[in-house]
Parts: sequence; C-alpha cells; structure tokens
Amino acid sequence: MKYCFGVDIGGTTVKLGLFEATGEIIDKWEIVTRVENRGEAILPDVAATINAKIKEHQIEADDILGIGVGVPAPVSAEGVVNGSANLGWEYKEAKKELEELLNLNVEFGNDANVAALGEMWKGGGAGEKNLIMVTLGTGVGGGVIVGGKVLTGNNGAGGEIGHICVNYSETDHCGCGNCGCLEQYASATGIVRIAKKRLLSETRATVLNKARISAKTVFDAVKAGDEVAQDIATEFGRYLGHALANIAVIADPGIIVIGGGVSRAGEVLLDYIKGPYMERAFFANKKVEFALATLGNDAGICGAAKLILE
Amino acid sequence: MKYCFGVDIGGTTVKLGLFEATGEIIDKWEIVTRVENRGEAILPDVAATINAKIKEHQIEADDILGIGVGVPAPVSAEGVVNGSANLGWEYKEAKKELEELLNLNVEFGNDANVAALGEMWKGGGAGEKNLIMVTLGTGVGGGVIVGGKVLTGNNGAGGEIGHICVNYSETDHCGCGNCGCLEQYASATGIVRIAKKRLLSETRATVLNKARISAKTVFDAVKAGDEVAQDIATEFGRYLGHALANIAVIADPGIIVIGGGVSRAGEVLLDYIKGPYMERAFFANKKVEFALATLGNDAGICGAAKLILE
Repeated sequence: MKYCFGVDIGGTTVKLGLFEATGEIIDKWEIVTRVENRGEAILPDVAATINAKIKEHQIEADDILGIGVGVPAPVSAEGVVNGSANLGWEYKEAKKELEELLNLNVEFGNDANVAALGEMWKGGGAGEKNLIMVTLGTGVGGGVIVGGKVLTGNNGAGGEIGHICVNYSETDHCGCGNCGCLEQYASATGIVRIAKKRLLSETRATVLNKARISAKTVFDAVKAGDEVAQDIATEFGRYLGHALANIAVIADPGIIVIGGGVSRAGEVLLDYIKGPYMERAFFANKKVEFALATLGNDAGICGAAKLILE
Repeated sequence: MKYCFGVDIGGTTVKLGLFEATGEIIDKWEIVTRVENRGEAILPDVAATINAKIKEHQIEADDILGIGVGVPAPVSAEGVVNGSANLGWEYKEAKKELEELLNLNVEFGNDANVAALGEMWKGGGAGEKNLIMVTLGTGVGGGVIVGGKVLTGNNGAGGEIGHICVNYSETDHCGCGNCGCLEQYASATGIVRIAKKRLLSETRATVLNKARISAKTVFDAVKAGDEVAQDIATEFGRYLGHALANIAVIADPGIIVIGGGVSRAGEVLLDYIKGPYMERAFFANKKVEFALATLGNDAGICGAAKLILE
C-alpha cells in the first residue's frame, strides 16, 4: 500500500490527513499554527507531526508518495510563497524547505485552489474535470480547475474570483484596494453590507434587525418568506450570478461549486444565483451544473492530497 | 529529421504549413475551402493536399509526428466539432475522420485558441507560458494559455473573451444574443459602432466622416491628433482594458497579446488599453506585459503545429 499526506495550513490551525493512494482517509488530526516570529515554526511543526504519524502507523518512507500542502497565499509553480499575512511569512521557498525537513516529495498550492481540487475529487464536483469553485466566507475565495488541474497562473494568483469587478460605479473600497469587487457583495461581510444599506431606507416590515444582522439571519429570513431579505438575496445573487457568467466564458466549466460558510444556507442559495447566471451566460455555457460543496473543512486536506495523487 | 503539419481551416481558404520538429517552417501553401454540401469535402481536400506534399518532399510516414488543425468552432477535448457555421459543418468527429483519411496522428483545436498558442510559441508572447491573446477583427476572438496549454474547457468553448459582459446597461444585442459583450465595443465593427454613436452628437471639428468610418480611419485620426477620434479610442480602451483586468484575475497571465486587423494600428493601441487595465487590475496582476501579435496570418498554422509539438 502507498500513502500520502494532505495538509491545510490556516492562520489558526493546521489540518492534516493521512490518505491511502486509493483516496481513503485513514487518519485526520490538527495542530496549532504558531504564527509568531514570522511563522518560522510552522513548517518544522508540520514536519514533526508528520514524522510522528509515520512512526505511529509504521509506514515505510518508500511507501509515501508525497505531502500536499495548501496555504493561504499565492504559490508559484515552483512552490515559492511571496508573503502570507495570515501565516506571518515573507518570501519563503516553502516546497524546498519542507522537502529538506522531511526528505520527501512535497507540493504546495493556494488553499482556495486546493479546496477546489478537493471538491472536484471527492465533493460536490466529483466526476468533473472543469470546475469553478467559489468559497463564500468572510471573503470570497475561489479556484478554477481546467482539465483536472488547478489554474495556477503566472504568479500563483489564478482563480482570484473574489476580485473580479462586478460594479464599476462602486465607491466603497474592497480590502484589495479596488472598488466593486465581487467580494464586496457576495461574501458574508458583503451580504451584511448590502443588507445594512437597504435597511437604511427600507419601509416594509422585516424580521431583520440592523444591529444583529449576518448572512445567516438574512437567509433564515429568506426561507421564512421575508420580502426585504429576499430582495437582499436577489441583489447578492445578481452580482454573483453575473460574475460567474463572466468567469464561465473564460473557463468553460462543467460545474460550478459553491462552498464556504454562506453556503450552509443550502439549495435556496443556488436558486438566487442560477437565474442571473442564465440571464447573462454565453450560449455555450448555459448547460453548466450548480452544486453545493460537500466536504466542508475536509476540502483542504483532500485537495492537498490530490496534489500528490493527480 | 521529424516533421509535422499545421493546418488553419477558415471559411474561405485553408492555410497549411510543413514544419520541422525544431519549429522551422519549410513549406507554406493554401487551398480553397469548399464549404458546399455541409463542407463534406474540406477534410478530404486537406488529406489530399497533405499527401501530395508528403510525396513532393519525399517524407517517410514514420517521420511525421502528426497534423495539428485549427477550425472556426469550439472543439471538444476528443476532437469533436458540434457545428461550425463558417465551414457548413454540423456534428463532426473531425479528429477521427482526418486520422482515418491520413492514417496519421491528428489534433484539433479552436482557431482562436490555436492562434494564441502560435503567438506563445513564436510570436508576441514567445517565452511565456501563461498568456491571454485577444484577436480584434470583425469580432473579438481570444485564447487563454495556462502553463503552456490551451484552456479548452468543458465544451471546447474556453477563452471566449469576446463575450465577457462589459456593460450591463447595454440595450443593443451582440451577435451571440446577449447585450453588452466586449465584442460590441472592441472589434473593428464595435469601434465603428462607438464612433457613429458619438458622431451623432459631436460638435467639435473632426476628420472623421460618419459615412466612411472604419477602425483604421479612427486610429489614423488618433495618430493625427484628432480629439474626437481620441475620445472614441479612449472608450474602446476602457472597455477592453477593464475586461482584460477581469480576465487576468481568473487566468493570471504573464503577458497579454493583442492581434487581429485592428492591432495594425500599432503601439498606440496598447497605450489606450494599458491605462484602464492598470486602473482595475488586481494587485497580483499589475506586472503583466502587453505586446502586439507578430505572426499575422501565420499564427494559425504555427499554433496548429504546436498542438503536435507541445
């Protein structure tokens, strides 16, 4: 039997999984991410916990195909990270460093891209080779898979879906410095922003309370039939659906997978996205499927393992 | 010495090239495209002219690596064309059919994608592996190259750059049926459309004459310092530059190559595109280079050959 490890390094915890080459997860655990001192302990900690797990499972080094790793930053094709705010890293030759620590084959990828690969492999996009994944969390992350491979791009910044411009008239700034990014409307934060703006001038009755609003309260109210919440969801869905139509004309996906915390709202979310998508999609892209992500927090370790198994 | 053929099938002529495996073109010729009877003669004609050329150059079948072919239609990964208006084709298993006619390895690709591959190999994008090519002709074609490979997508419709929506307020229809496509502003036809609209209400003096306007007359006037023409070029450049910024956030290119008839305007064209691009580009995409295509009509046969040589 051959094995590989999938590692998902986040700003708070590192999630790890031990996989058989067939794809089955046989162990799963977490360690704390120590970001102090420019995150210098992170890769040695990962190496130490993997070495401990290799001993525990009595695996021979020859039977390990490699270690796949997702990190919250652009990663070049050579496995170089040129700064990660969440990990405290500046320029780091991440692949080289971890390969030297472990004496094993290592592949790095951007965490959102890697999660997309995981959903293609075992999740909402299983069976597809051309996929767009959108992760609706605090921000909007994304990954584009083309012919089964992550679209990495020239700087490791491929598939940065959250920063496609969807509103050239916007005057509020996105975290990236531009105005009108998808992230300003379709993230959990963006939905709250839309809601608060609307509630300023809203005269209809609504269960929404400006002081305690969240993406969850909005979509709970949508399901309860609240018209104001439904208008907020319509605005959210219009920006996201139109953005996806523009992404599809470039990437020509077979499936679009929606994940992240906001996607816990369920199928109702897709209903608000599909209409505006179809309204603007190029004819060749109208047959695309929509699905919710299914792997949750495991998407990262699965996709990281797939970096090795692909 | 090993050889391959590059074939560019257009609606009027088929362009062909014989290449050494090193990439050197050693012969180049054309035949007429016979589109009558659903274009049933096109592939047999291609096979016949290739067989004649093989005899003429006294090449052994074993020394032919294959035949690359570009066609004006989406092409699936399996070499199937599901209809081409320009060639009269309906559903056609193009790769299989030509392989049977020639008893040689054949690869098909979409003509705009294949031209992008050609420019990456020997043209304006030489040396790059991540490239966006935009062809500004009667329409706006395009191709996206990622990691040295054409982004084909699920239906062979990847990189359909001309149909990214750049203006959600547009009420005129694009040929594709949607409203606000890049093609409506950045093609030769689109530039004329912008110009005619502006001239309706223009009060300044201009050399432009509404009855005899073309993309060429507009850019000639731009170079002569005509302010009205410069405003038209500014509008053109804003739509194209903003669209390219949105495409770059997905594809993360190292270079953007501008080709097609409109690009004969030269470097001045790039000046109008770069500003709006930089204004809207995601920070990770600001270092991209811009270049004019250099292969002209040879981009198709070169890219087609590269389908075999890659």
